[in-house]
Amino acid sequence: MPELTAPAAQDVAPATEGLTVALLGGGTVGSQVARILTEDAAVLHDRVGAPLTLGGIAVRTLDAERDWQADPARYTRDAEALVDGADIVVELMGGIEPARSLILRALEAGTAVVTGNKALLAAHGAELYEAASRSGAQLSFEASVAGAIPILRPLRDSLSGDTVHRVMGIANGTTNFILDRMDAEGASFEEALAEAQRLGYAEADPTADVGGLDAAAKAAILATLAFGSAYTLDQVSVEGITGITAEDNAAAADAGYVVKLLAIAERGTAEDGTQGAVLRVHPTLIPREHPLASVRGAFNAVFVEAENAGELMFYGPGAGGAPTASAVMGDVVAIAQRIVRGGPARLRTPVAALPALDPAEARTSSLVVLRVADQPGVLRRVAAVFEQHAVSIETLRQVRDDDAEIPGASLRLITHRARQRDLDAVVADLTALDAVHEVASVLRVEGN
Amino acid sequence: MPELTAPAAQDVAPATEGLTVALLGGGTVGSQVARILTEDAAVLHDRVGAPLTLGGIAVRTLDAERDWQADPARYTRDAEALVDGADIVVELMGGIEPARSLILRALEAGTAVVTGNKALLAAHGAELYEAASRSGAQLSFEASVAGAIPILRPLRDSLSGDTVHRVMGIANGTTNFILDRMDAEGASFEEALAEAQRLGYAEADPTADVGGLDAAAKAAILATLAFGSAYTLDQVSVEGITGITAEDNAAAADAGYVVKLLAIAERGTAEDGTQGAVLRVHPTLIPREHPLASVRGAFNAVFVEAENAGELMFYGPGAGGAPTASAVMGDVVAIAQRIVRGGPARLRTPVAALPALDPAEARTSSLVVLRVADQPGVLRRVAAVFEQHAVSIETLRQVRDDDAEIPGASLRLITHRARQRDLDAVVADLTALDAVHEVASVLRVEGN
Repeated sequence: MPELTAPAAQDVAPATEGLTVALLGGGTVGSQVARILTEDAAVLHDRVGAPLTLGGIAVRTLDAERDWQADPARYTRDAEALVDGADIVVELMGGIEPARSLILRALEAGTAVVTGNKALLAAHGAELYEAASRSGAQLSFEASVAGAIPILRPLRDSLSGDTVHRVMGIANGTTNFILDRMDAEGASFEEALAEAQRLGYAEADPTADVGGLDAAAKAAILATLAFGSAYTLDQVSVEGITGITAEDNAAAADAGYVVKLLAIAERGTAEDGTQGAVLRVHPTLIPREHPLASVRGAFNAVFVEAENAGELMFYGPGAGGAPTASAVMGDVVAIAQRIVRGGPARLRTPVAALPALDPAEARTSSLVVLRVADQPGVLRRVAAVFEQHAVSIETLRQVRDDDAEIPGASLRLITHRARQRDLDAVVADLTALDAVHEVASVLRVEGN
Repeated sequence: MPELTAPAAQDVAPATEGLTVALLGGGTVGSQVARILTEDAAVLHDRVGAPLTLGGIAVRTLDAERDWQADPARYTRDAEALVDGADIVVELMGGIEPARSLILRALEAGTAVVTGNKALLAAHGAELYEAASRSGAQLSFEASVAGAIPILRPLRDSLSGDTVHRVMGIANGTTNFILDRMDAEGASFEEALAEAQRLGYAEADPTADVGGLDAAAKAAILATLAFGSAYTLDQVSVEGITGITAEDNAAAADAGYVVKLLAIAERGTAEDGTQGAVLRVHPTLIPREHPLASVRGAFNAVFVEAENAGELMFYGPGAGGAPTASAVMGDVVAIAQRIVRGGPARLRTPVAALPALDPAEARTSSLVVLRVADQPGVLRRVAAVFEQHAVSIETLRQVRDDDAEIPGASLRLITHRARQRDLDAVVADLTALDAVHEVASVLRVEGN
C-alpha cells in the first residue's frame, strides 16, 4: 500500500483506518453514492490505495422506510458533527442553506468538498472558491453540470494548453425533451410539456426548467470552468422556451434549423473594447447537421470551440441518480488519491480574471420573421432599418401568406452576427413601421 | 509566482529559468506545438506559474526552407543532448526507432514524456509504462488517440469511481470519410477511396487506414486507458473496410443501420470463466439513431458505456496539426503545473490487471445475408444450423431475388449476442448447405 502523506492543512486519518466520506443528503443521488461506496468498496480501495469509509449520511428527517440496505444507524441529523469528522465531504442536499454553511465549515477546516449543487454554486460560487483557496482545501463540482458527462477535467486540464472561445450546452433535459417533441411531432409547447410531465421528465411545477433558470445556473458554472473566473447567476441573460410556438418551429425547420435551449458562455469584446465573458441562455436555432442538433430527448451535451482543438462535443445523460453519482465518485476518488499520494490540492488554474460583460454586448446571428403588407417598397424600407443599425442581412426569403387573416407576405431574414443591442433596436424600429403588420418571430442562431 | 518544488527524482531548472521543453520531431504536429509554445508563452506562463521554454527541435534532416518563424539555430540533429537537457520531452517523430530509445532515455532519467506516437505505444506500451513507473517519471499520451478529443482524463480520472464496460471508437478519419461517402452516395469502396485521396483524407498508400491497423493501435491504447492494463496491437483482432460492398451498405440501410469502422475494447468472460478484455476492430452496423451514427466525414468519436454513468460520447477532430497539438499541450501544461506545485507524478491508477482474451471470445450480434434456393424446407434447415451452435435469431426477413442470376431468395437474419467462434461455425456450416447459394454478407452489430 502506498505511504499516506498528509498535506499540512489537512487532518487525515491514518491509511490503515482509511478515509472517511461524509454524505450530506440521502436522496436520489446521495443514495446512489452510498451504494457505490458500499458495493464497490474493494475496487475503490484498490484505486485509491486506502479504504474509503462512509462516515454517515446527514438527512433533514429520519425516514424509517429508506429502502437501501445500509445500517440505519448511519443516518444522522447532526450534519456539523459528521462534517467535522470527515476527510472528504460530499454535499448533495441541494438548495442554499444549510448546504452553504456546511461547505464553508468543511473548507475552512481544510477538508475537501465535492458538491453537485448548481444553485448554490451559481449564487455563492465566488465565496466558496475563495474559502477553498484560503485554506488550500479542494472543492470539486463535476456533478453540478450535465450530470455524468465529464466536462470539468476536459475544460480544466485537457484544454489547459489551448484557448476556449465558446461553450454551448444543452444542459437541461426537460426542455430538450419538450423541444424534441415539438420538432418531431409538430406538438405545441403545452402538449409537449404535458407529455414530459406524464413521462416524469418534467416536474409538476416546471418553472425553473422551462423558464431557463436551471440552464442559467449551469451557464455560470460552465463559464467558471472554461474561463477560470467565478461567475454568478445574475450575470446570465435568461430566456426560457415558454414563448416557442409551433410556428417558430416551422420557420426553423423550413430554414434547415432545429430549436434548442442553449446555455452559452463565450469570450467577447464590449463596444468600449473591454475583453470579457458573455453568458446567456435562450432558445437557439442550430443547423440540422450540427452535432448539437442530434442530441435527443432528455440527453445533455456540451459543445466546445477552442483555438487549436477546434470543435469538441461531450454527450451523455444529464441527470439521474446513478449517472450523477458516477460524476461525484470521480471527484471523490481523485481527491482521495491525492490525499494518499501527497501533493497540494488541485485548485483552479490561476489565470487573468475575465469580467462578465453586459449580455447586450453578445454578438449573435438571428432569424427574424416579419408579416408585411404585400405592397411595393416594403422590402426597401425593411432593409433600410437593418442598414441604419449596421445589422447586415445574410439571407432573405419572401413567402406569400395567402391564408393569413390580413393579406400580405412573410419575410424571413437571417442576419450576420451583430450586437444584441443593435438587433433589439432593429426589432423596435420594425415594429413601429406601418408596412410591418407583426414581428412574428426573433430567434438567435448559432453553429453556422 | 508559486514556489517551485522539485520532486526528488527529477532534475528541474529553477523557477526563474522556467521549464525546458524538448521537441522531438518538427512535422505537422511538432511545428504547431512549437508555434503554441512561442505565441502563447505569456498565457502558458500564467497557467503553469513558471515560463515554458522551447529547448530545441530535434529533426532527422535540417531543412533550410522550414516555414515557421523560430530561430533556425533551435533545430538540431542531436536528439540525445536535447533530451538530457529537458524538463519535459515531447515526442512527435512517429515510428518505433529512434522514438522508443529516446523516450526510454528520458524516462530512465526521471524526465516526464508526452507522446502522440500510437504505433510505438501499441507495440511497446508495456515497456514504456514500466520504465515510467520505475523512475516515477510521468508518461502522458492524450494525443495518441482521437486527435484533440479529451479522452484520457475522462477515462482515467472522471470515471475513476465507476466501472467502464465498453469503449467503442470511430478512431480513424480516413475510413469514416470513405464509409460516409458510400452511405450518402451509394458509392463503391474504390470510388469513395479515390475521392478521399483527391481531398487529402487518404494517403497514396491507404493500407494502414483501410486495413484497420491504425484503428487497432488506437483500440489497444483505448483499452489501456479504460482498463488500466497495458495492451498491445497483437492482442487486437483486425478487419478493415476493403471488403465492404455497396450491397453490404444497402442491406445495412434497409435494416436501419449504418456501417462504421469501430475500435472496440470491452470487458468479457471467456468460455472457461476467465475475466478479461476483448479488443477488436471491424466494420460494424450501428443503428441510425445511435450517437455514433451521426459522426460524419473525417471526425472521430469515442463512445463509452459505464456501469453508473451510462452512455457517454466524446466527439471532435481526429487529426490535424493544431487539434493534435492542443492535446499535446494539455499534457505538457498538466505536467508542468505538477512540477511547479510539487507532488508525485500522476501515474496509472493501480488496478487488478485485466488480461486480453482471445478475440474469438467476443460476444456480438450479427447481420447475416444469405442467398438461398426458393424451395420448401430451406428456412427450417437454416434455422437448424443456428440452433445447433446455440446462436439465437432476433429478426429474420425473407426477400425474393427476382433479378438474381440464380433464381431464389435472400434471407436477412440478425442474431442475438453470441460468441464469435459459434457464429464462425454457423457461417461455415451454412456455406456447406446445399440450399444456400452464398453467404453474401456477415456484419457485426453494436449499439442495439
